[in-house]
Amino acid sequence: METVAENRSFGGTQGVYTHASETCGCDMTFAVYMPPQAKERPVPVLWYLSGLTCTHENAMTKGGFQEHAAKHGLAVVFPDTSPRGEGVANDEAYDLGQGAGFYVNAKRDPWKPHFQMYDYITKELRGIVEGMDGIGTKHGITGHSMGGHGALTIAMRNPEMYDSLSAFAPIAHPTQSDWGRKQLSAYLGDDEGCWASHDSTLLLQEHGWKDDILIDQGASDQFLDLLKPEALAEAIAKRRQPATFRMQEGYDHSYFFVNTFAGDHVAWHAARLL
Amino acid sequence: METVAENRSFGGTQGVYTHASETCGCDMTFAVYMPPQAKERPVPVLWYLSGLTCTHENAMTKGGFQEHAAKHGLAVVFPDTSPRGEGVANDEAYDLGQGAGFYVNAKRDPWKPHFQMYDYITKELRGIVEGMDGIGTKHGITGHSMGGHGALTIAMRNPEMYDSLSAFAPIAHPTQSDWGRKQLSAYLGDDEGCWASHDSTLLLQEHGWKDDILIDQGASDQFLDLLKPEALAEAIAKRRQPATFRMQEGYDHSYFFVNTFAGDHVAWHAARLL
Repeated sequence: METVAENRSFGGTQGVYTHASETCGCDMTFAVYMPPQAKERPVPVLWYLSGLTCTHENAMTKGGFQEHAAKHGLAVVFPDTSPRGEGVANDEAYDLGQGAGFYVNAKRDPWKPHFQMYDYITKELRGIVEGMDGIGTKHGITGHSMGGHGALTIAMRNPEMYDSLSAFAPIAHPTQSDWGRKQLSAYLGDDEGCWASHDSTLLLQEHGWKDDILIDQGASDQFLDLLKPEALAEAIAKRRQPATFRMQEGYDHSYFFVNTFAGDHVAWHAARLL
Repeated sequence: METVAENRSFGGTQGVYTHASETCGCDMTFAVYMPPQAKERPVPVLWYLSGLTCTHENAMTKGGFQEHAAKHGLAVVFPDTSPRGEGVANDEAYDLGQGAGFYVNAKRDPWKPHFQMYDYITKELRGIVEGMDGIGTKHGITGHSMGGHGALTIAMRNPEMYDSLSAFAPIAHPTQSDWGRKQLSAYLGDDEGCWASHDSTLLLQEHGWKDDILIDQGASDQFLDLLKPEALAEAIAKRRQPATFRMQEGYDHSYFFVNTFAGDHVAWHAARLL
């Protein structure tokens, strides 16, 4: 593992690292914020999965998580959203290929050799983060848009691995959205039966989540038709799933929305991880 | 004036606007954060001047000011750092021309027709901001690096216009630094007598500031040799200038440094403007 940068931030360290990923078959870059408390004792980890087009960097620089993580004593991991590099398949569209891994393990070419983001997040990078000095045993997970989809689906499929769950404007029902059908078809194939385990609404209907969930959604989000929060809200209500679903007046899909509520989400996770 | 974008942020509005600038002879873009309190009553304004290579956008997205401005009820203005556009002179170097206006009025060609950032900040944009709905009568000023230089020099030369003053890692003694001599020579000419009114250390020695000043400087800043904080610190001490000068262990020159201390600076200005 190679250190790309380390910057002091709110008394802790914002680091960026690269490593040769066996799972993705390419070099992968990720960021970790280590709060000042990690010098004294192991701290819990909050995983933040980013949305379409993002790298590890967007939320790291614009999400405003460090201040709150330092206050509560949480580490925050910012993975990339896909494999990258010259030998990695790509597509001209912003929502397929590099920057758009959708947190699945691709079964179809040309994506299969590299696009194994589900295993990367839950196994390879998980192992790397667990091995870092100062990292404790409890993990929470959140994310924005495609990353909110990733957080919800990964947590509901692996409840033993995560102790807290939230999401910002998640792609909530990808099997019924153009943000989903296109990618699930490309990566997994046309058998829609395989798609259900990557759809938060369907997973929640089927399995629910072991604890409560925090979800924030901007009421003026320009992508509401693609995100389909109403499907997830309905599933939550039908299942009587403990959850706080907040429709936030006036907010859109940008990082101005994410960083406005970053403090609430970090506090939510801290209350469950500490 | 044209609205480029408006995003809800911490209950207020982060706006980006362009206008045809008479002073700079080109279109200029700036950002204003209006806190929620501005809907109820006029709020004071904090001017944030950015550093080399920046536009209005860097601090707006990475500085973390909105959260604190919303808490205290301050507006924040993020001007661009130079005129821009096809007809505007430029230089291959990152530290001259576009992105490097240095907050002076250029007297020499090719810079003179457009590079009038001192007048732009203190007159034209000041007038525009004063005319915006929700803006009150009190103004504070801060900035980072070249923008810290801008904030300190502009405030000390116009004490009647500003009621509070701070800076992040300012270029503190440009007449004796490669971040200064090059630009002051290019923009103002070789008569170094004209440069003194754009040097914080010399202005502080000569005029001081009417109130106290907050300055944060990273002790691990990679540009310490160019910033020369020791010259400004010495001038403060010699003049018995009320000031808080903080050398912050481990911090570098990045926005991770700026946003770590953004809350302290906003609180400092709020205490003097409200």
